[in-house]
Amino acid sequence: MSDIQRFDVNARMSEMAVHNGVAYLAGQVASDGTKDAQGQTAEVLAMVDVLLARAGTDKSRILMAQIFLADLADFPAMNAAWDAWVATGSTPPRATVEARLAKPEWKVEIVVKAAV
Amino acid sequence: MSDIQRFDVNARMSEMAVHNGVAYLAGQVASDGTKDAQGQTAEVLAMVDVLLARAGTDKSRILMAQIFLADLADFPAMNAAWDAWVATGSTPPRATVEARLAKPEWKVEIVVKAAV
Amino acid sequence: MSDIQRFDVNARMSEMAVHNGVAYLAGQVASDGTKDAQGQTAEVLAMVDVLLARAGTDKSRILMAQIFLADLADFPAMNAAWDAWVATGSTPPRATVEARLAKPEWKVEIVVKAAV
Repeated sequence: MSDIQRFDVNARMSEMAVHNGVAYLAGQVASDGTKDAQGQTAEVLAMVDVLLARAGTDKSRILMAQIFLADLADFPAMNAAWDAWVATGSTPPRATVEARLAKPEWKVEIVVKAAV
Repeated sequence: MSDIQRFDVNARMSEMAVHNGVAYLAGQVASDGTKDAQGQTAEVLAMVDVLLARAGTDKSRILMAQIFLADLADFPAMNAAWDAWVATGSTPPRATVEARLAKPEWKVEIVVKAAV
Repeated sequence: MSDIQRFDVNARMSEMAVHNGVAYLAGQVASDGTKDAQGQTAEVLAMVDVLLARAGTDKSRILMAQIFLADLADFPAMNAAWDAWVATGSTPPRATVEARLAKPEWKVEIVVKAAV
């Protein structure tokens, strides 16, 4: 049905679905697992930027961000990348918890919903 | 207010709420905790099918799935059930992390949002 | 863009975004980390009430609640506060998992979406 637009659909999942003015992004993780938590967060947020742009929106229109950190000791490093990235005056609601991620080299995974 | 439809409402929670074209499902877990992770995932996904059908929708219209695994070692087993289940060409965005679940026998919990 | 209303915007995040009839709340945690899990949950739910009221809605219109418990041993204590709080007949879908929270004194974090 054409009221749902999906991006990067593969046999297991897609990277984003857009429906009724909201973009739902898959959990984003770094492709380069050798980076530290700040570097991985910066890479993840850059991937979010690219997906949001493909949906015709941007980080100033994020509705919620769920952040999973493999190790809460990386909270300051994640925040350093986050604080440098967020849209001033349009920062989104956020929740951060610790959870092991699917690959041991991943330090952060971010799940975003945004208005398009 | 009649713009929210709730399903299986009890004193603590309901299993699904539908509002403005989106179905929000409670976290689904297996009723049979003796099954292995693949079996529990298959049961959970069958429960998702039933709930989505009650909302007049189906798995081809899922907008996001958040998967919690009690043990990431079960990632392949969960994926085996998942890959056999998803709607080809309409796979949803997904995020998977490890988290202990409310009952020790539960191996997987899945939280789904879908367009109706 | 004026179709998103944000509340308590600071340099890192905001506490709530309202878009297209849905309020997305940041993860709510207790300001008083010396309380036990039941007390923290009651405080968190009172904070949810205040945010929902500012969006012109209330707990009878919650669409989904994601609960993170630092220790699943607090599941009964969290439920005691939850069960005393929810709107009879309009209880929301819910998922509860264990996850370490950003500050060690926090015992519970709750992420809510609600219809406005």
